[in-house]
Amino acid sequence: MTDTPVVTLEDIRAAAQVLDGQVLETPLEHSRTLSEITGAEVWVKFENMQFTASFKERGALNRLTKLTEAEKKAGVVAMSAGNHAQGVAYHAARLGIPATIVMPVTTPFNKVKHTREHGARVILEGETLDEATAHAFSLRAKEGLTFIHPFDDADVIAGQGTIALEMLEQEGAPDFDTLIVPVGGGGLISGIATAAKALKPDIKIIGVEAAMYPALHARMGGNIGQVGGATIAEGIAVKDPGELNFEIAKRLVDEVVLAEEEHLERAVTLFADVEKVIAEGAGAAGLAAMLAHPAKFAGKKVGLVLCGGNIDLRLLASVFTRTLVREKRLARIRIIGDDRPGLLGKVSKVIGDAGANIMEVAHNRIALDVPAKGAEFDILIETRDGQHTKDVIEALVLAGYPPREG
Amino acid sequence: MTDTPVVTLEDIRAAAQVLDGQVLETPLEHSRTLSEITGAEVWVKFENMQFTASFKERGALNRLTKLTEAEKKAGVVAMSAGNHAQGVAYHAARLGIPATIVMPVTTPFNKVKHTREHGARVILEGETLDEATAHAFSLRAKEGLTFIHPFDDADVIAGQGTIALEMLEQEGAPDFDTLIVPVGGGGLISGIATAAKALKPDIKIIGVEAAMYPALHARMGGNIGQVGGATIAEGIAVKDPGELNFEIAKRLVDEVVLAEEEHLERAVTLFADVEKVIAEGAGAAGLAAMLAHPAKFAGKKVGLVLCGGNIDLRLLASVFTRTLVREKRLARIRIIGDDRPGLLGKVSKVIGDAGANIMEVAHNRIALDVPAKGAEFDILIETRDGQHTKDVIEALVLAGYPPREG
Repeated sequence: MTDTPVVTLEDIRAAAQVLDGQVLETPLEHSRTLSEITGAEVWVKFENMQFTASFKERGALNRLTKLTEAEKKAGVVAMSAGNHAQGVAYHAARLGIPATIVMPVTTPFNKVKHTREHGARVILEGETLDEATAHAFSLRAKEGLTFIHPFDDADVIAGQGTIALEMLEQEGAPDFDTLIVPVGGGGLISGIATAAKALKPDIKIIGVEAAMYPALHARMGGNIGQVGGATIAEGIAVKDPGELNFEIAKRLVDEVVLAEEEHLERAVTLFADVEKVIAEGAGAAGLAAMLAHPAKFAGKKVGLVLCGGNIDLRLLASVFTRTLVREKRLARIRIIGDDRPGLLGKVSKVIGDAGANIMEVAHNRIALDVPAKGAEFDILIETRDGQHTKDVIEALVLAGYPPREG
Repeated sequence: MTDTPVVTLEDIRAAAQVLDGQVLETPLEHSRTLSEITGAEVWVKFENMQFTASFKERGALNRLTKLTEAEKKAGVVAMSAGNHAQGVAYHAARLGIPATIVMPVTTPFNKVKHTREHGARVILEGETLDEATAHAFSLRAKEGLTFIHPFDDADVIAGQGTIALEMLEQEGAPDFDTLIVPVGGGGLISGIATAAKALKPDIKIIGVEAAMYPALHARMGGNIGQVGGATIAEGIAVKDPGELNFEIAKRLVDEVVLAEEEHLERAVTLFADVEKVIAEGAGAAGLAAMLAHPAKFAGKKVGLVLCGGNIDLRLLASVFTRTLVREKRLARIRIIGDDRPGLLGKVSKVIGDAGANIMEVAHNRIALDVPAKGAEFDILIETRDGQHTKDVIEALVLAGYPPREG
């Protein structure tokens, strides 16, 4: 490595000029309610409001504008199952550059559809990201295309760094103590750290990774457990950070923390419930870090980058429901009784009188731990909170219908 | 009635002064994707970004500032199961005015909780809105409180009208042809119509009501069917518009259209999927009107008031799932076969080879239209769209497993 950084504040200022008017200067808003919940002072940078609903447009556009005329004419190729695909496809189309996007065959339908709608040639190839990347490389060679890397590229890093310029300089920006930045390959955090530390050397830059994919955490000396799995933060499910990104991160990133799925799910739900916005798992990772490590941020002025909002609505529906179950506002209770008429009516009355709603009743007549002439009900109830659920169970016990663990 | 309007543009300008810095000047944004979907040019006014996630703060705050010192000291009472409750509670607390909110006993837990958290005394009383109102009136008499009406009040109307000033005058505001405004009691539309028609006499003001609650539509001469029912737009489920509101609407509102539940649900889903924001049913009604009556708005510059974002997350999850089913991206197919091992394996392979995902399998062994030794499966599949669903069914037919209607 040389002593000259590969990306400088000047590169990022230049990228901001390139992006001006082509991508949104997204809102940066203080959240009173998230501040109360986390015990810190929280501001959110709403990068999910970009046209393709993620920050990836910034790096992609900055990189595309650096192509020579011959490269523009030949076209570009990228590999991505997600937001980078849309960022490249959308801005390449705007600039009249032919774009090919290679996606693994397992990519969700909706992401394929959106990328096609932006005018790109989409090729589904490979079972894994590695296989898809290999195919993109072969297209580069065969068709003379330029490969647009999602993160390990100085122009991409400079593009992502423009977010930090805005966070520190846009109207309403506070004097931040800490920025929390989701980390996949490291494009976002390396750009943000470069700009933010140049402008404000004492600011803390904290990365957050999904606990299932602690790549940068491990490279920076952290302990890791099992790696891999189906995280809801698939946008940051990357097994190795980029080389440029790691070089920058090891100099400028203060710490990388991990967020478990439970915190990611709760953070997605809070963004919907409190801020009335859709965050994808990776987009909510900054808030998840605060929920997972509250003491680390207590009383600090913290900036979160809500970096993307592309989440499948079916998955989102499931996350909402799971969060309600986890907070015991939805609870499944199991009642065993004799199988005579009237039992369900009596139990329902006790639950209703205790102020809970019955959402669903399932009968289970073939459970072997119940007498052949007995009956087992699973009743899904909605309550105010965990205490209310306890009150309902207590009322059932008093009435002679003790529920079993569901 | 006199010839002098009860609310004037000057009243609304004065309200804007009162509200300045106390409620948000919410963003007004052009939506490229909603424009493509509707065939019009669509701008959205994001009133769901207010602190209590609805426009109701505007009218409530304007009304509260008109109280005498004695009235402020004695306190206020309001009846609301929803957004008006939070608007009054939040701003009364800020101004140091004691607030009592009467809510029907059936009010969802979460709304009660939020209203209490804003510092109001919440009283749950009455099975219906009428009974809760009667109780609020009795508290007014007994405790000397001032009743804050949710819509039938000149100061409330003037407060809501400030939205139109912003929509016509804020940065980025286009030269609107039409504003579409959700109608419950009529507070929002009477304020907006007053300001908008004064500033731009040829602008069209179109109201939208849930088809189950066509109160203003009927008062203005429209045909109505059955009234009442459990709409997802409970924020505009009002059986009679206010008197002041009707007087203003009949002079200034060009038309009131109706939106069925299907369009309300699709509009809620589109706001989440495209704009990455949470809209409640009433908040999405303007977009629902465009989906229900596309020809009426084709090619026009249309402003939508996304008036609220308070929707129960469990209901929201259900709306997302129902929309996917309606768009045939989730489909339930029923297969009948003999009850020997291996049938499910074979059917699953056909579905997988056709590129669809299996989400859920239910066995139904007690259906009487199936032979006693037969088996019936309900299989929930996820597909790209309706055509893909047809392709999957065709593949099952070819393989000898013709599905029945689910």
